[in-house]
Amino acid sequence: MQTTMQLHYEIEQLLAAYAALIDADRLEEWLDLFDEDSQYEIIARENVEQNLPLSLMLCDNKDMLRDRVMSLRKANIYNIHVDCHVLSLLRITSAAEDRCSADASFALFQSNQEGESRLFSVGRYEIEAKPSAQGWRLRKMRVVVDTGAVLTLLATPI
Amino acid sequence: MQTTMQLHYEIEQLLAAYAALIDADRLEEWLDLFDEDSQYEIIARENVEQNLPLSLMLCDNKDMLRDRVMSLRKANIYNIHVDCHVLSLLRITSAAEDRCSADASFALFQSNQEGESRLFSVGRYEIEAKPSAQGWRLRKMRVVVDTGAVLTLLATPI
Amino acid sequence: MQTTMQLHYEIEQLLAAYAALIDADRLEEWLDLFDEDSQYEIIARENVEQNLPLSLMLCDNKDMLRDRVMSLRKANIYNIHVDCHVLSLLRITSAAEDRCSADASFALFQSNQEGESRLFSVGRYEIEAKPSAQGWRLRKMRVVVDTGAVLTLLATPI
Repeated sequence: MQTTMQLHYEIEQLLAAYAALIDADRLEEWLDLFDEDSQYEIIARENVEQNLPLSLMLCDNKDMLRDRVMSLRKANIYNIHVDCHVLSLLRITSAAEDRCSADASFALFQSNQEGESRLFSVGRYEIEAKPSAQGWRLRKMRVVVDTGAVLTLLATPI
Repeated sequence: MQTTMQLHYEIEQLLAAYAALIDADRLEEWLDLFDEDSQYEIIARENVEQNLPLSLMLCDNKDMLRDRVMSLRKANIYNIHVDCHVLSLLRITSAAEDRCSADASFALFQSNQEGESRLFSVGRYEIEAKPSAQGWRLRKMRVVVDTGAVLTLLATPI
Repeated sequence: MQTTMQLHYEIEQLLAAYAALIDADRLEEWLDLFDEDSQYEIIARENVEQNLPLSLMLCDNKDMLRDRVMSLRKANIYNIHVDCHVLSLLRITSAAEDRCSADASFALFQSNQEGESRLFSVGRYEIEAKPSAQGWRLRKMRVVVDTGAVLTLLATPI
């Protein structure tokens, strides 16, 4: 039981850091949470349920994710919004010595430069993590969004 | 302290499963979280504060809840929305060997088939659980909603 | 590791109580969570990032906070809204024997007397706590809000 609770705590803190680093626009440090061999995907729930492979965003390795962050830095000179993630309770869905799966729902709010906030997206993180010398790292992060409509506006990661 | 933390963890995971199973539309498995002798109630906060017994939904035993789920399956052939629960931090409010009470706030978001999400309801879960051979089960779930207005549209459980 | 988890649990429960007491309009008990020597501040994220000291609300000691609650009781005879906090996963940002810092994002929803709910504010709690005979108490609570726009309507604490 202690092992389970400790694992839960460690993955929860990995996800909390993930969200806090996006919200603080510290995307370079956010990258550090990913394993070199990792996948990041944003996909509409509708597509998951219909077994359609079409993603809203897919980075198949960490270099693609690095490119994404770098282009954000160049393309978006002005920070036109700030993010605020609110994460729900995390669940460990499977665990072994060298890997761990978990999920947690989230709501993502965005605020504009006038200080007006709105709901941007809701959905569920599906996490695969592996241990490293620096603690757990993301092997795969799949963001399944219920909110497919507005995500044509997708700029920063979720 | 360890006992308290472990209990907190177990009830938190019960609530996380409760929300995840509704969100995944796996209501038959959601039913399994309830004890045979259980009560499920949705009530407006206004009525709780004025000591009015009027509920928005009341299932006084598990068979009533089973009926509810079965009629949902027949009546709603098309899934006109998907749910996403975001749960706040859980608190154990009382604990004994054979029972436990807890509460946690929540926000429930619904997304339609166009992939547009909106806030559907906010409120607080008031949980009474009892131990079973399969872990903690819900003896009583009272959903106290701040959002009394839209809940005339209430179809799926909260 | 056990120590870390226990500390995390205790601060998480302090914050959960903080939110639940505001939501239940039990502000006098909410005051009890603050140390006598404490500071409560609500500040726009924009001002934090630009190093502007201007707060939306600043109580530099507990008596100021007591005054604030008392004036709320006199000025707002009718409770025109109810609050519902949804808290994200908490992170311990630093810890020592006699103090602890933590943060957590939040969404605050308000519901009016017609039972209509809306997003009121999102942001992040920055917590400094110290141990006391009654458990951890708030030494400093800084509420950094992304939602600067509506907070001219600020009446109750966040």
